[in-house]
Amino acid sequence: MKFVYSFNEGNKDMKELLGGKGANLSEMINIGLSVPDGFTVTTEACNFYYENNEKMSEEIINQIFEKLEELEKKSGKKFGDYKNPLLLSVRSGARASMPGMMDTILNLGISNDFINGNVENKRFILDSYRRLIQMYADVVMHADREEYENILEKVKKEKGYKLDTELLEEDLQVILDQYKEIYKRQTGEDFPSDPKVQLIKSIESVFKSWNNDRAKYYRKMHGIPASWGTAVNIQEMVYGNISENSGTGVAFTRNPSTGEKKLYGEYLMNAQGEDVVAGVRTPNPIEELKVSMPDVYNEFVKNCDILENHYKDMQDMEFTIENGKLYMLQTRNGKRTAKAAIKIALDMLDEKKIEESEAVLRVEASSLDQLLHPMFDEEEFKNASLLTTGLAASPGAATGKIYFNSDEATKQSEMGIKVVLVRNETSPEDIKGMQDSVAVVTVRGGMTSHAAVVARGMGRCCVVGCEELEVNYANKTMKAKDGTVLNEGDYISVDGNTGNVYASKIKTVEPKLDEDFSRFMNIADKYRRMKIRTNADNANDAKVAMKFGAEGIGLCRTEHMFFDEERILTVRKMILANSKEERQEALNSILPYQQNDFEELFETLNGKAVTIRYLDPPFHEFLPKKEEEIKKLASDIGIDESELLHRLDEISEFNPMMGHRGCRLSITYPELAIMQTTAVINAAISVLRKGIYVIPEIMIPLVSDVREFTYLRDIVVKTAERILNEQGILMNYSVGTMIEVPRACVLSNEIAKEADFFSYGTNDLTQMTYGFSRDDASKFLRGYYEKGIFENDPFVKMDKSGVGFLVDTSVKLGRGENPKIKLGICGEHAGNPESIDICEKIGLDYVSCSPYRVPIARLAAAQSSIKKGDK
Amino acid sequence: MKFVYSFNEGNKDMKELLGGKGANLSEMINIGLSVPDGFTVTTEACNFYYENNEKMSEEIINQIFEKLEELEKKSGKKFGDYKNPLLLSVRSGARASMPGMMDTILNLGISNDFINGNVENKRFILDSYRRLIQMYADVVMHADREEYENILEKVKKEKGYKLDTELLEEDLQVILDQYKEIYKRQTGEDFPSDPKVQLIKSIESVFKSWNNDRAKYYRKMHGIPASWGTAVNIQEMVYGNISENSGTGVAFTRNPSTGEKKLYGEYLMNAQGEDVVAGVRTPNPIEELKVSMPDVYNEFVKNCDILENHYKDMQDMEFTIENGKLYMLQTRNGKRTAKAAIKIALDMLDEKKIEESEAVLRVEASSLDQLLHPMFDEEEFKNASLLTTGLAASPGAATGKIYFNSDEATKQSEMGIKVVLVRNETSPEDIKGMQDSVAVVTVRGGMTSHAAVVARGMGRCCVVGCEELEVNYANKTMKAKDGTVLNEGDYISVDGNTGNVYASKIKTVEPKLDEDFSRFMNIADKYRRMKIRTNADNANDAKVAMKFGAEGIGLCRTEHMFFDEERILTVRKMILANSKEERQEALNSILPYQQNDFEELFETLNGKAVTIRYLDPPFHEFLPKKEEEIKKLASDIGIDESELLHRLDEISEFNPMMGHRGCRLSITYPELAIMQTTAVINAAISVLRKGIYVIPEIMIPLVSDVREFTYLRDIVVKTAERILNEQGILMNYSVGTMIEVPRACVLSNEIAKEADFFSYGTNDLTQMTYGFSRDDASKFLRGYYEKGIFENDPFVKMDKSGVGFLVDTSVKLGRGENPKIKLGICGEHAGNPESIDICEKIGLDYVSCSPYRVPIARLAAAQSSIKKGDK
Repeated sequence: MKFVYSFNEGNKDMKELLGGKGANLSEMINIGLSVPDGFTVTTEACNFYYENNEKMSEEIINQIFEKLEELEKKSGKKFGDYKNPLLLSVRSGARASMPGMMDTILNLGISNDFINGNVENKRFILDSYRRLIQMYADVVMHADREEYENILEKVKKEKGYKLDTELLEEDLQVILDQYKEIYKRQTGEDFPSDPKVQLIKSIESVFKSWNNDRAKYYRKMHGIPASWGTAVNIQEMVYGNISENSGTGVAFTRNPSTGEKKLYGEYLMNAQGEDVVAGVRTPNPIEELKVSMPDVYNEFVKNCDILENHYKDMQDMEFTIENGKLYMLQTRNGKRTAKAAIKIALDMLDEKKIEESEAVLRVEASSLDQLLHPMFDEEEFKNASLLTTGLAASPGAATGKIYFNSDEATKQSEMGIKVVLVRNETSPEDIKGMQDSVAVVTVRGGMTSHAAVVARGMGRCCVVGCEELEVNYANKTMKAKDGTVLNEGDYISVDGNTGNVYASKIKTVEPKLDEDFSRFMNIADKYRRMKIRTNADNANDAKVAMKFGAEGIGLCRTEHMFFDEERILTVRKMILANSKEERQEALNSILPYQQNDFEELFETLNGKAVTIRYLDPPFHEFLPKKEEEIKKLASDIGIDESELLHRLDEISEFNPMMGHRGCRLSITYPELAIMQTTAVINAAISVLRKGIYVIPEIMIPLVSDVREFTYLRDIVVKTAERILNEQGILMNYSVGTMIEVPRACVLSNEIAKEADFFSYGTNDLTQMTYGFSRDDASKFLRGYYEKGIFENDPFVKMDKSGVGFLVDTSVKLGRGENPKIKLGICGEHAGNPESIDICEKIGLDYVSCSPYRVPIARLAAAQSSIKKGDK
Repeated sequence: MKFVYSFNEGNKDMKELLGGKGANLSEMINIGLSVPDGFTVTTEACNFYYENNEKMSEEIINQIFEKLEELEKKSGKKFGDYKNPLLLSVRSGARASMPGMMDTILNLGISNDFINGNVENKRFILDSYRRLIQMYADVVMHADREEYENILEKVKKEKGYKLDTELLEEDLQVILDQYKEIYKRQTGEDFPSDPKVQLIKSIESVFKSWNNDRAKYYRKMHGIPASWGTAVNIQEMVYGNISENSGTGVAFTRNPSTGEKKLYGEYLMNAQGEDVVAGVRTPNPIEELKVSMPDVYNEFVKNCDILENHYKDMQDMEFTIENGKLYMLQTRNGKRTAKAAIKIALDMLDEKKIEESEAVLRVEASSLDQLLHPMFDEEEFKNASLLTTGLAASPGAATGKIYFNSDEATKQSEMGIKVVLVRNETSPEDIKGMQDSVAVVTVRGGMTSHAAVVARGMGRCCVVGCEELEVNYANKTMKAKDGTVLNEGDYISVDGNTGNVYASKIKTVEPKLDEDFSRFMNIADKYRRMKIRTNADNANDAKVAMKFGAEGIGLCRTEHMFFDEERILTVRKMILANSKEERQEALNSILPYQQNDFEELFETLNGKAVTIRYLDPPFHEFLPKKEEEIKKLASDIGIDESELLHRLDEISEFNPMMGHRGCRLSITYPELAIMQTTAVINAAISVLRKGIYVIPEIMIPLVSDVREFTYLRDIVVKTAERILNEQGILMNYSVGTMIEVPRACVLSNEIAKEADFFSYGTNDLTQMTYGFSRDDASKFLRGYYEKGIFENDPFVKMDKSGVGFLVDTSVKLGRGENPKIKLGICGEHAGNPESIDICEKIGLDYVSCSPYRVPIARLAAAQSSIKKGDK
């Protein structure tokens, strides 16, 4: 088996084997760009390493050394030879980009020989050696890196230096001696003097870093399977920090925040790449390079054009200038905001670089979320006092309480607090805290700093480089230029579109969607097969969804109307009724409310379909839990408190999720179904008289057996026909069911014979299929992610092989018996692009999601259609 | 469509269409026995009646009248003609026997003409007319029959008569006039003078009675589908009450209680059949007929032989003697006790009347339960004081508190009281009360009385005809011959094998199984394919099961050992531990207990397989609920009560059945699985050293994903291998899983690749497949039965089309991937014969049921093998 490839053996289509970075390095070499040469250890080698109980096999090691020898020949240099040294970097590179999640080691190939030998540019070599020891100790040996930093700082202080560059050869000698001592103390062994040992250990440590905690967390967040593994790229070092006419930078071929067609980047002279990404020094805009190094700049611009035209997508590149010579170190399709993604897709379409369907695929559906987020309320905004301004790294607007520590941010957010995370800079350890915050603000770093890249990926509002802010971690305070001091827990507001940060709470409002968005969505709609409906229980939600393009209501939960303060007492009376008569009386009082709700909904929908689900939750959800509330209820309905307690006890259940709920309620109390049908039909008649034509779709929940369905269907039909006859009106209505228990899936043929439609309730179906209570599972699922047992929350991303299989079985059985049956999904999954893709493959007629996810669902469904090759 | 068949058009194989009674009447006519002629309205007519909105269709009515005309021609009599009257009975007759559940009307064809006309035997006709009106009012019009009884009693009292037979023609005239008046008052119409109207109304009322409450309850209890419908038999009347040399009786070709090969029956002279069955008069043994009417007796004995040889089974027959002539009114395979069933099957096998496999099929598997019931403890029994003796109607021994009313019996039993129901006689209204009692005692009635027949069917211990007892319903007391008075709630003990009733509580002990039983079970075992294991958590249960023939333990629930008083505190400490160290410490204390339990079990099993399921229930099941217990626990483990309450709150769940339980516990706390594995392997090593070889089967519960399984399997294997290596022992053990959530079923291919065995946990699987919480479902399932939505409790009888389908899918997927995988079932269904039949069809390797159901499972599995045609 071939485990190692020279760069010139690969190409851009070999990402699965060589990882993204490796494949693109190969590609750049193939198209003639100037790239430091090297080779890639494959992802298969990584997987083999794990299968082999985390041991580097002889075979892999031998193949690495063969390629090393080839590289020595090609470069004319020698690994470990101080006279003509070949110095190498070792970098991870998975199939999908996982920025900063895994390990990197630089400057490999230096050993003690170099210190004593007659080395060219000795100071630089000593400095590189120092860096190597420090990095190796940290990454390979997991030793404490602080100790090394302390020594460096100490020597600098003693000598009165400010910058590392001021260190002299002899200073570095002293430092190196101390580094080696610490290394020995920390690890119990000498720093390996054999560069080949360094190399193999470094490669192994990259393999290991595939399974570090932050990589696992990142994979979980982005749905990357553990089985992909990472490749490792071994590349000749070039030094942006070797001289004053050296440097390093990153750039995008177009603006990753707005999509504007203009080269967008940053660089630092006399620096290593890590310095730019880490955000420790704030870099210069790429335009300035044009002035300082016009030849390099022109070559770079040419390279950008070549790469964008070659990849036909916006590129994100890293480069290094070593003594005035440009090297390309990386290119990849650039991450971008949703706004930028839409603009770039439309521009490239207009530039005829890509086809229309390709343009639709270019915008990640879930990223649209960013555009749908609220913006600041103009009135409140006018009076807001500006605290500081930084770089607008990720769009959106958010208000929250400030916290300076990621763990604290997570903790507060779990208690329901909206948190803005403020840091000097962020590192991969902060990912969870960023995820749990509504916005992120950093003091240092540019648009390509860790904070900026990660926040954009998350769609999290983010402002970076607020250099005027002073953060004091110890006191948990931050101070603005004007002296304003804010404490942990104080409110700030962050505008990710302008980079402004305000020292107060500002109300947010709905976003306005621009023309690009409309044009793009209209193009996407041309390719979409599935209809998009929304889950909405009231006219307001329905209006939002319609604005976003919903084509109907796929789930109206009638019980949400019951919780209204005005009605809850009557609802409770109905539940606690001791006789059918008492219950009927309460239902009679509920009827006009319910009818009115439906009328409003029908009017809003103005002819679009509305699926109305009958009462679903167990009764005790409507009943009070607290002592004083129980007391009040007893007096309100005029019964003894002890009697009420007894009734509450009777109604309580061991496992309410599998208890007396759904269709089981109306089977016990058919008068419920009669009341709800009366409300639906009366409402439909009432709006019909105003000229609005509706076809109500009545949905019976939680059916496990066809006889449950037919029993209630017959009651619904009898009630509806009676009213329509009395009113002398002809009206169509349909009666269908939610398919949400496994039994209904495997017996869908029987149910489909009787039902007009199925709506898959994949929330409950996921619960029953796994035997996971949604309310209790988070407790143990956390451990599942940590232990690599699960990668995704099955309540967020549909479980294709279990739940998906049952839905697919149901669809086949149902259509087999009733080819005209209408099939949709109304669980939370209906707003999740990966789950929508499963629905498209299964062949559902529509998905119904929450209002704010309608555009996401529209785009995801279009992309799935395109991928399926329907159009 | 042909809805009506003359008796001579049918035969015994047409039960589905003609019902059991109709088919057998036809058959008896075919083989030349003397049977009153008639015709049968089919079960299809009954179903058509219900489809037709409970209206008698023209077509059915016309066919009935056609057959009536035919019957008139054959008999030479005329329906409704007082000069040469054809009098008819109308009786229900479903496919399965449902004794007394549906309606019967006799003496149809008499009208007012008969009163005025010159009728032969006028007194008898008047008496029959009186009976007709009373029965018709009751059955067809649902009027109050008491009023009629009261008039009869009044007239008898006025005249000083004791018996109905003393009534003179003129008395009956008076009574009839009053009856007609009451009838008109009660129903608002005259008693129909047209006999054809009487006939059609009567047939309709039999159809209607198919859906009366007791018929529905009986169907549910016996798993008879509503869709079968009942046939209606219209037959010429013969009168056992027409003269002193008339009579009526019932008989079995063999003793239905013991199986003894000897004609067994009872008769009453000058009586109608109802008189025998109702148990109002105590009848004479059939042998006495030999003396009083030798010719009739000899003919009857001949008929018995003919019928038994023809049907090759013990027959239960009804006959009537009209003026010295014998008529056969019914024959059917007789119901019998399990003891009798075994003896009859073995005797018929020895008589070469049936094949061996047929003999195995002749004993209803679930009836074995009767033989396995406890008997009285001999010591206590010696000193028991005999209260009275009756007929030993249904075997077994039971002790309980007496109640005189069925509703009260049910109520007490629901509160956990063991109840003996004592009644003068029972009627179909008492079925539920009998079901809920441990024994039934009646004052009146014989071995074929309602109480006796029904109790035997239920396997309920029963003594009937205790004529010396005086029951006072009003005072709720009963008085024995010796003056002893017992009150409601006092204890008695009932011996269903001897007919003795004792005035005290007597301890019961395990039954001894006789030679017939062993011989029969050994024959059955020859035909059985599936292995039978038992669910046992301790050595005692295991011993009982072994005695009954269990071939291993299919489910040892390790948590049951945790509830032990001695250990629960340690278990609670383990659960409430705040750190891994604390938890480990508690687990270390539990280990020796657990190991010892396993050692005992292994020793008892002596080489037979033992499947050990790892901790399954959610933690809070082990924790106290009551305030004082919580206080005590807090002080026992030395923490603050408020802290304990907080921890208890954290551990509590919304839906524990789908919460943190099963394999999820050991995934969160792997030290649990390590402790349990250590206990299992150490125990196995320990008994191995005593020369007992065990292959422990370790079972991981509640797996929904293969990675849950492999994660724990790896921990188990690592722990086991470590111990075995340390001890230098080679030992086989297997690691498998319970398949009990739907996802595990549909992904069984993946799991089977890794697991050595699957055990289907159909309790949980039923819960998840339906979304029914077993603890909460009874609340709404009651309504499901009433409304005909469900016929069976899916937790008792496996749901073939839903749960069965998922198990079948799992078996196919699992075997497809791993043909050697061992497959069994350990849910409650494993002791239910109908469910065992599903398991045989699916092809499981074994079923594992509770100890007392092992013989039932052995027989049921053998019968399923035979039916499947495996052997």
